[in-house]
Amino acid sequence: MTAVTSLLEKYNIDPKQIGRLEVGSETVLDKSKSIKTFLMQIFEESGNTDIEGVDSTNACYGGTAALFNCVNWVESSSWDGRYGLVVCTDSAVYAEGPARPTGGAAAIAMLVGPDAPIVFESKLRASHMAHAYDFYKPNLASEYPVVDGKLSQTCYLMALDSCYKNLSHKYEKMEGKKFSIAEAAYFVFHSPYNKLVQKSFARLVFNDALSDASSIDEAGKEKLSPFSSLTGDESYQNRDLEKASQLVAKPFYDEKVGPTTLIPKQVGNMYTASLYAAFASLIHNKTTALDGKRVILFSYGSGLSATMFSLRLREGQHPFSLSKIASVMNVSEKLKSRHEFPPEKFVETMHLMEQRYGANNFVTSKDCSLLAPGTYYLLEVDSKYRRFYAKKALANGSLANGH
Amino acid sequence: MTAVTSLLEKYNIDPKQIGRLEVGSETVLDKSKSIKTFLMQIFEESGNTDIEGVDSTNACYGGTAALFNCVNWVESSSWDGRYGLVVCTDSAVYAEGPARPTGGAAAIAMLVGPDAPIVFESKLRASHMAHAYDFYKPNLASEYPVVDGKLSQTCYLMALDSCYKNLSHKYEKMEGKKFSIAEAAYFVFHSPYNKLVQKSFARLVFNDALSDASSIDEAGKEKLSPFSSLTGDESYQNRDLEKASQLVAKPFYDEKVGPTTLIPKQVGNMYTASLYAAFASLIHNKTTALDGKRVILFSYGSGLSATMFSLRLREGQHPFSLSKIASVMNVSEKLKSRHEFPPEKFVETMHLMEQRYGANNFVTSKDCSLLAPGTYYLLEVDSKYRRFYAKKALANGSLANGH
Repeated sequence: MTAVTSLLEKYNIDPKQIGRLEVGSETVLDKSKSIKTFLMQIFEESGNTDIEGVDSTNACYGGTAALFNCVNWVESSSWDGRYGLVVCTDSAVYAEGPARPTGGAAAIAMLVGPDAPIVFESKLRASHMAHAYDFYKPNLASEYPVVDGKLSQTCYLMALDSCYKNLSHKYEKMEGKKFSIAEAAYFVFHSPYNKLVQKSFARLVFNDALSDASSIDEAGKEKLSPFSSLTGDESYQNRDLEKASQLVAKPFYDEKVGPTTLIPKQVGNMYTASLYAAFASLIHNKTTALDGKRVILFSYGSGLSATMFSLRLREGQHPFSLSKIASVMNVSEKLKSRHEFPPEKFVETMHLMEQRYGANNFVTSKDCSLLAPGTYYLLEVDSKYRRFYAKKALANGSLANGH
Repeated sequence: MTAVTSLLEKYNIDPKQIGRLEVGSETVLDKSKSIKTFLMQIFEESGNTDIEGVDSTNACYGGTAALFNCVNWVESSSWDGRYGLVVCTDSAVYAEGPARPTGGAAAIAMLVGPDAPIVFESKLRASHMAHAYDFYKPNLASEYPVVDGKLSQTCYLMALDSCYKNLSHKYEKMEGKKFSIAEAAYFVFHSPYNKLVQKSFARLVFNDALSDASSIDEAGKEKLSPFSSLTGDESYQNRDLEKASQLVAKPFYDEKVGPTTLIPKQVGNMYTASLYAAFASLIHNKTTALDGKRVILFSYGSGLSATMFSLRLREGQHPFSLSKIASVMNVSEKLKSRHEFPPEKFVETMHLMEQRYGANNFVTSKDCSLLAPGTYYLLEVDSKYRRFYAKKALANGSLANGH
């Protein structure tokens, strides 16, 4: 609710101008009632209930599915001229153990409409979807997932390979020339942790070397040629290949990936929002320099579903220019205004969350002193499991109640 | 899996021809991994993993969201020429009490592509989405929902009113004349139980009478005029209005709704599949007589989201003609081949389901004697909650294994 109201306010958009609202999330508040219906509270106030779209779910991929759905809607005959709005939101945690620091929470709202500065190259898109048990949440009573960390990483890299090969194939068919990392200015990855992003980009470089693409010079190809005979499975586990390809990839990584890593590195995993936080980092870092540039994004959700897709950026016109977007996002200030807590406090909070997960009949501390003005926060879950929120007053003193 | 493989076989479609697969469901097997990824097993076998789409969730509405997404995809620039496939599937139960008989289970698969015999009139569509606690599943550890039966019915009728008024308004703007029940040959409703369908259609007739539409004769309008001064809320509770409007609606109901009620009446509630089972009843009952006809559908999911939309039917060409669809569905035979069980047996099965809901480490009885050939069934959920299925041999002896 905070992300949606903030977006509407900052771009001065009447809630009546929204014709589609869709949520991507892997966080289950309710197994039947969608998160989208909670967000409808914002729009009901202005009398707008004619808003299509519900929740899209598959691990961290739901936001990408929601985004594609919204873009397709704008291009379809059922589009009614209004904006689409996509929300990626999660609060995801791990049981105690080495994976715990890769939990995280975030919400990102994106507006979709015609004549945007960020344009989909819809034909340049490839998916890889399969049945896998790498990360899943089958224990319905627990907030924690079941994770096979090693399998999850292999699944991610396999899906990446598959998407990259398929996208390259489609590009070659359309453009009559080979695709390689040289064809895009930037590469943005789903970023649960930065090491995986480094590995992922190195994997694309390895793919380019194998296909003898001109993006990699002879010295680089030579360094990677010893690994050309590895089977797929072997290559995902091979540490020497990992090191060699990251070394060859290094200068390209600094140029084409580095500018996308700011927020994921600072904030950690954000699940459905992760890829778009990385993309936001790029807009923050490069802004007007992105005019005319192609950006390739790779979205991954365990289970598994993955898509690699292409965007073409242009400066665009106020209020939807890249400069305006960068200034509205205000990334530097937001990063600076975070609060630091000791791990003990986090563990304590997690114990409280464990008790309250799926529970009813409790009130929260209602302490909103650390929240930014305009933030919605949970007040109470009543005996019928109904959730009540309040909104922290804005600096100018106005207050809304989410009851 | 049964519905998808059956559709592909009966229409002789190569799994490689599917470019989008999307599931609508309110049944949570896993909070992160989508049902769609389970279905990918069918397509991985044929080497097709480039299939977009995940799961859409909001109570019984998820299937409609998935269907709209698929149709929009075919109309968008990201369509790659292949078919879309939509699956509506649920297994939903109630705790002991009066609502228990309204539980149910079903799976319906629908193919989406160009030049179809069932065509969307995309501009003739109106949604009503809002934040409500009429039926929801906040207790994550339990398979049973929290239900406010009376509120749920009021929400349904309010959403119906809102959609009908908005759709009528859009129609009038486009066509320059009033919309009324006379403008469509058939009306199909989300059908948890038949009494609600009768009430719903009577509500449309009441709306027509209030707006002085020519669809209702003077005698009918006179019968309903005493209720014209009721507020919305009063009118949802008024038993006399209910009786009077159903009486006025009766001849129209028999003609425009009766042919849609066969399967929902025989099978009971089917959740996301309910609306489409009602629509299948219509195709079964009227088949070629539907050529050129407009059909209005009303989809409702608690929480809440609802859309009223319009389809235009035509006989179409083999293999996607209405006659072929009716013969493939083979509704009469399927209804005849059901098995009857005493309520005690059902209660016993429910106890077993309660124990196994969200559980791991169990094997099923593997008794598939009552299943139709080609049906997938659960064998085992292992210690890591991984689910293993088998497929009952087809009559010709071929067997597939879902491991």
